[in-house]
Amino acid sequence: MDKVNLKDKLKKFDQLWSPKIIGEMNELYIKVAKLKGEFVWHHHDNEDELFYVVKGKLVIKLRNKDIELEEGEFFIIPKGIEHLPVAGEEVHVMLFEPKSTLNTGNVKNERTQDNLDWI
Amino acid sequence: MDKVNLKDKLKKFDQLWSPKIIGEMNELYIKVAKLKGEFVWHHHDNEDELFYVVKGKLVIKLRNKDIELEEGEFFIIPKGIEHLPVAGEEVHVMLFEPKSTLNTGNVKNERTQDNLDWI
Repeated sequence: MDKVNLKDKLKKFDQLWSPKIIGEMNELYIKVAKLKGEFVWHHHDNEDELFYVVKGKLVIKLRNKDIELEEGEFFIIPKGIEHLPVAGEEVHVMLFEPKSTLNTGNVKNERTQDNLDWI
Repeated sequence: MDKVNLKDKLKKFDQLWSPKIIGEMNELYIKVAKLKGEFVWHHHDNEDELFYVVKGKLVIKLRNKDIELEEGEFFIIPKGIEHLPVAGEEVHVMLFEPKSTLNTGNVKNERTQDNLDWI
């Protein structure tokens, strides 16, 4: 039952592409992550996923268009839609997603994070 | 399938204590609202509710303590917990809550908003 300051949470880790849990509500987790470079194309069969940009710029590539997000903007990726997050420079994001969400969705590889830490 | 810019959405209305829907995912709505003054004590029987401050300062009074939120901070009010939002000056917030959430929770009065608009 404490408030959460996004920037304070983001100071607590440096690891890229490694979401950290900062809150939970109604079967969702709220997470923060630091992203730089290109992730992997994937989709989530059952979960919509929200990306909110706290700092920097994020491109979310979809198969038919690119979504360019700046600070104070969010995009919801509906379940089933393939997407590829790309960050030219380091970007800090807040994520909202059901607890069942795996970072690489339908893909399992060396970038998959199975057990996320709370910070 | 478009991005959402919080500040652009907040420019579209002036009405206080009247949440507007700006997105949906996984049975939740994402809303923005402008608050000033004191609301009404209430709780939500079945829904956790997240307040994120976009601009200004918000106090969320609980029965046993006050939560003081500034820009870039959020607080999750668990289901069943009585709360009273108070804003000395106008504050702009983003809300995450299940679609079933009524703004005044267990209370029905002249401040209850039954049908929220999308903006």
